[in-house]
Amino acid sequence: MSVSPLMHPDRLFPVEPASRSLARDLYGEIKDLPIVSPHGHTDPQWFADDQPFADPSSLFIKPDHYIFRMLYSQGVALEDMGISRQDGGQVEVDGRKIWRRFAENYYLFRGTPSRLWFEHALSSGFGIDTVFGPNTADEIYDRIDQSLTTPEFRPRALFERFNIEAMATTESPLDDLRHHDKIRSGDWTGNVITAFRPDPVVDPEFEGFADNVRSLGEITGEDTLTWAGYLNALKDRRRYFAERGATSTDHGHPSAATADLAEADCAVLFAKALKGTCTAEDSELFRAQMLTEMARMSLDDGLVMQIHPGSFRNHNQTVFEAFGRDKGSDIPMRTDYVKALKPLLDRYGNERSLSIILFTLDETSYGRELAPLAGHYPILKLGPPWWFYDSPEGMLRYRQLVTETAGFYNTVGFNDDTRAFLSIPARHDVARRIDCRFLAELVVEHRLAENEAVEVARDLAYHLAKKAYRL
Amino acid sequence: MSVSPLMHPDRLFPVEPASRSLARDLYGEIKDLPIVSPHGHTDPQWFADDQPFADPSSLFIKPDHYIFRMLYSQGVALEDMGISRQDGGQVEVDGRKIWRRFAENYYLFRGTPSRLWFEHALSSGFGIDTVFGPNTADEIYDRIDQSLTTPEFRPRALFERFNIEAMATTESPLDDLRHHDKIRSGDWTGNVITAFRPDPVVDPEFEGFADNVRSLGEITGEDTLTWAGYLNALKDRRRYFAERGATSTDHGHPSAATADLAEADCAVLFAKALKGTCTAEDSELFRAQMLTEMARMSLDDGLVMQIHPGSFRNHNQTVFEAFGRDKGSDIPMRTDYVKALKPLLDRYGNERSLSIILFTLDETSYGRELAPLAGHYPILKLGPPWWFYDSPEGMLRYRQLVTETAGFYNTVGFNDDTRAFLSIPARHDVARRIDCRFLAELVVEHRLAENEAVEVARDLAYHLAKKAYRL
Amino acid sequence: MSVSPLMHPDRLFPVEPASRSLARDLYGEIKDLPIVSPHGHTDPQWFADDQPFADPSSLFIKPDHYIFRMLYSQGVALEDMGISRQDGGQVEVDGRKIWRRFAENYYLFRGTPSRLWFEHALSSGFGIDTVFGPNTADEIYDRIDQSLTTPEFRPRALFERFNIEAMATTESPLDDLRHHDKIRSGDWTGNVITAFRPDPVVDPEFEGFADNVRSLGEITGEDTLTWAGYLNALKDRRRYFAERGATSTDHGHPSAATADLAEADCAVLFAKALKGTCTAEDSELFRAQMLTEMARMSLDDGLVMQIHPGSFRNHNQTVFEAFGRDKGSDIPMRTDYVKALKPLLDRYGNERSLSIILFTLDETSYGRELAPLAGHYPILKLGPPWWFYDSPEGMLRYRQLVTETAGFYNTVGFNDDTRAFLSIPARHDVARRIDCRFLAELVVEHRLAENEAVEVARDLAYHLAKKAYRL
Repeated sequence: MSVSPLMHPDRLFPVEPASRSLARDLYGEIKDLPIVSPHGHTDPQWFADDQPFADPSSLFIKPDHYIFRMLYSQGVALEDMGISRQDGGQVEVDGRKIWRRFAENYYLFRGTPSRLWFEHALSSGFGIDTVFGPNTADEIYDRIDQSLTTPEFRPRALFERFNIEAMATTESPLDDLRHHDKIRSGDWTGNVITAFRPDPVVDPEFEGFADNVRSLGEITGEDTLTWAGYLNALKDRRRYFAERGATSTDHGHPSAATADLAEADCAVLFAKALKGTCTAEDSELFRAQMLTEMARMSLDDGLVMQIHPGSFRNHNQTVFEAFGRDKGSDIPMRTDYVKALKPLLDRYGNERSLSIILFTLDETSYGRELAPLAGHYPILKLGPPWWFYDSPEGMLRYRQLVTETAGFYNTVGFNDDTRAFLSIPARHDVARRIDCRFLAELVVEHRLAENEAVEVARDLAYHLAKKAYRL
Repeated sequence: MSVSPLMHPDRLFPVEPASRSLARDLYGEIKDLPIVSPHGHTDPQWFADDQPFADPSSLFIKPDHYIFRMLYSQGVALEDMGISRQDGGQVEVDGRKIWRRFAENYYLFRGTPSRLWFEHALSSGFGIDTVFGPNTADEIYDRIDQSLTTPEFRPRALFERFNIEAMATTESPLDDLRHHDKIRSGDWTGNVITAFRPDPVVDPEFEGFADNVRSLGEITGEDTLTWAGYLNALKDRRRYFAERGATSTDHGHPSAATADLAEADCAVLFAKALKGTCTAEDSELFRAQMLTEMARMSLDDGLVMQIHPGSFRNHNQTVFEAFGRDKGSDIPMRTDYVKALKPLLDRYGNERSLSIILFTLDETSYGRELAPLAGHYPILKLGPPWWFYDSPEGMLRYRQLVTETAGFYNTVGFNDDTRAFLSIPARHDVARRIDCRFLAELVVEHRLAENEAVEVARDLAYHLAKKAYRL
Repeated sequence: MSVSPLMHPDRLFPVEPASRSLARDLYGEIKDLPIVSPHGHTDPQWFADDQPFADPSSLFIKPDHYIFRMLYSQGVALEDMGISRQDGGQVEVDGRKIWRRFAENYYLFRGTPSRLWFEHALSSGFGIDTVFGPNTADEIYDRIDQSLTTPEFRPRALFERFNIEAMATTESPLDDLRHHDKIRSGDWTGNVITAFRPDPVVDPEFEGFADNVRSLGEITGEDTLTWAGYLNALKDRRRYFAERGATSTDHGHPSAATADLAEADCAVLFAKALKGTCTAEDSELFRAQMLTEMARMSLDDGLVMQIHPGSFRNHNQTVFEAFGRDKGSDIPMRTDYVKALKPLLDRYGNERSLSIILFTLDETSYGRELAPLAGHYPILKLGPPWWFYDSPEGMLRYRQLVTETAGFYNTVGFNDDTRAFLSIPARHDVARRIDCRFLAELVVEHRLAENEAVEVARDLAYHLAKKAYRL
């Protein structure tokens, strides 16, 4: 059996020998640093209950929209990959059949980060270095399946093996955080915290918005049918989350629009949102106002804000209706920050104690808008390349476009932002390798001293994330 | 006489020795594969009549807007390059004088693909490796001029020498395809087909739209003054084209806007278009609706759709009035795909038998919109870098921006899209070299296995184009 | 004391040995060419009065918004960097304390061009090669402070030492150019000229617009309350500037919008502007019209136009109110050129004697809009990468995105565009190194002959700027 060429110890480093050697040295300095994963979407129940993961397909394929979107683009039905239908209709349940289908189409992933992550997980997670493909799919399936039954592959054991120092999941304000409570109340010392993601109760276009707001009232005992009660309820839930370790909030709006309306206007808009009579513009304005409200609350409770704008969610209406959210059809859009953020920045842009981390899916904003903004406003920092840009080329472009204007210290290290637990070490490894590559090239071009590069590499891999997320 | 440095066998390969060596090996595997040219604008009469080409300037300069736009930008009058005036006014007719003017200004093309194509054509077409310039212009003119009188330089002989397996030209629905009929009825075996380009009859802003639609009625015997008759006429012409070998349609709209209107609204809009009372918005909406109509017809007749949006045609009004269309003043514009394509995608985005190839002149859409869309929707594929991006840097950026999200297999190989027959081998050669360069770099960075790179190189150079265009 | 690694003789060259060696050779051919600095913002009084510069902080930090914006982004108060408040409130006056604060935060500049410029100025300006930082700040402060008292560090001596052949400053039409008169009337031969920057009298949103127009009337004796008198006054001031050596005008508008209104409409709009009743759209339209008026005047008086659009000036309202303009909070915006410039181009785009140099802060326009426009219209040329893109990566992207479509000869060489006199040699040096790097890579990839690269390097470093700015 031949060995995966993607697991070469020098992978992703520059080819030119002096640069490669230096990149390798820099990487050697940081590769064993603990993982700080301050933004992600793993399931806290895994760590609460510590039950074994199911079969290989449930672990690697069904939860990974990067994988099934690619297969879907080439004509494979989502049902054939085991993705559940909203109507409960029949889908493939045989994990092995799904796995084989993936193997037959594995050539589609050539040149993609999904492949790097998958082979890294096979190799470092399961000790499997065999080249994956139709001929080896069964053998590899069996080995993983067997491993999953052993204690070493339970969620907590993996968490420890992955050397994760801290990891945040993301929950709705309506979540009771019972899994987090269970994690924290036991004697396991793994640091799994939550993050406050209020989209279901601050976006009038979110499914069930009015019901969600009503539930928020029930949970908090506030009258969430009034603007003041609604704000109090949000403050209350933020406190609840913070008490359980949350250090950040996360906001996935279609745009980066912010607003700074008079209180009376807010109340009117909120009433329309509850009644479901918002126009698209009203909804946009309400979300915009809520970002400013969240910033105001962050000034009080110290939660770091994360703004992730620019995705057209559920672009494929047919897929959305049949399979629901998060099925690989969220598509990035052009995103403005300069005018969009101005109302919030006019209000709070110069506050020393506020921290807002900006993400983008529109790379044109890196150099034109985000680096200039983060290189000036004290409250702004730049999140790492996100989603489709959580990739070697995406990371290189990010450093090339951002560093000259914002430096390294207005960025916040790496976030994996994943639902795929097994990919976490791989994603951090890719980020560390690419940052070492970028730094090595600066050094060999005499743009940075080697001792500085070592320090920056450590900061990017570890210290900046801890500092930015107040961990 | 010194030899052109641009014809070095290692041109365009990476400089680092391991990468260069591997790029050279990969290129060796594919350089002799036949050319598939599924989208272009050569004149079918050349192959129908097989008459010798006129003088060197008529062959290389007058039909090539890349060349005369550059000279014009530096103050050379189009008349002095022999470009015909609409008013029949005097222009330079002496091919040699035009050629010398080009030679004097040849330094302007340093670093441009035009220069790569020109020197490749001199070298591989005419065996001329002398450095081109004012001192050698006459000698080179004479050698080409002499060659053009020989049988080896007739269009059909060149087609065979170029190893072209299939080539598409582009015709209006009003074209009777007599040249294609002549090509097909003779005993020449060269595979020259047409493609259906309906812009003159689907764009209310096209010169003579209403007359064109009337002619369409006469040709097809349909009542094209009614919406239903108009659609029938289009279906009829598509069938006519398909019977003569066409496998694709081609749509050069200002934007990628699509629409899905009720039939009654279509009829009203069509009536306005015929009367010439469309506003700019009406015209845009009509074109948008017609893309969806074309998709519907493609579902029936199997023609692959190509959408080429984003060019502001004839931007220079003075040049347009004096010299007409396609004189080098078409300028790219910012182009949205995510919202623009949604109506069509909502209707037909998940059809397995439909295939739409998207092009762009707005590189910001590669990573942000096009790769995410093509990496999800089964009907979408990405065309190669087009027009100003049919260039080494343009091709590299394309692979860097597209591959990580859409992979290689949602792209369709290379299209030359040219009116300049002599440049076809050069353009395919540049694309093959750059793809081998990109693949070699993936291999030396341990992101792809070498045997996979060979397979992908072959697919990109040959198989993907055949498959995507159903050739 | 260790030596700055950034002053390595091979800095910024490619690492691969063949490319590096060639880049070094090319650089050797051009490094001693005189500096042509046709666009900048140094203070002409320096050269008129030739007084010593004050302390190191006043020279390097207080006038450099690149430096204090970065410190501000990390929480350092502008007051603590000695930036004057509008209200005369207390700020740090001790240059040494400011210098130490800069040194403590110097690590923030890793990977930024500011650091390259600063260390170049220390090294080549003051012979200081010691690594800068908290431990060496005092020693370096003392050495600079001492140097500044010597004749070799007076402005005129530095101008000569920097080998500046010509340098333009920028003045308002309301400026009497007394410093330029003093420079020209003495026996110093340094060629310092002015450039005509009419923003204060052509932008209705400029502070004090109506008063400025009134002053323009007083200076010129024209009735600037009428449209005709206003235009005459502008023509008059342009003549005044041209007589004192100006060869160019400079226009810093928010967008590239141009207009071509009827005279009567202009008069109405102008009246509103004077009355202060313009809406935002009116102001935009007035500025747009004024670009066309300026082009018309340039046809008469031969001044080269420079258009610098796309900056959202004074984005941080709090900083603007406390500290005034140009304090590091100007943020780039998305900028359209294709539609924006059309009215002006329709009118004057094909004039042989008019020359307009376009700049951008929106890199997406390089390949999509600016290179295609400049590669066609005889009046258009592209300015160098500007502001945040006056940087190694910014310059590389510029050449990569522009050259294939516009070539080298539709660009105009390098502008430093700086207020920081000491950074001028450093900025030109970075541009020369990066251009040599780009050219060397073209040569080793067999895309350009070596002898051509030498010629292009000379043109980019020296000849193109002289020609484009008519110096």
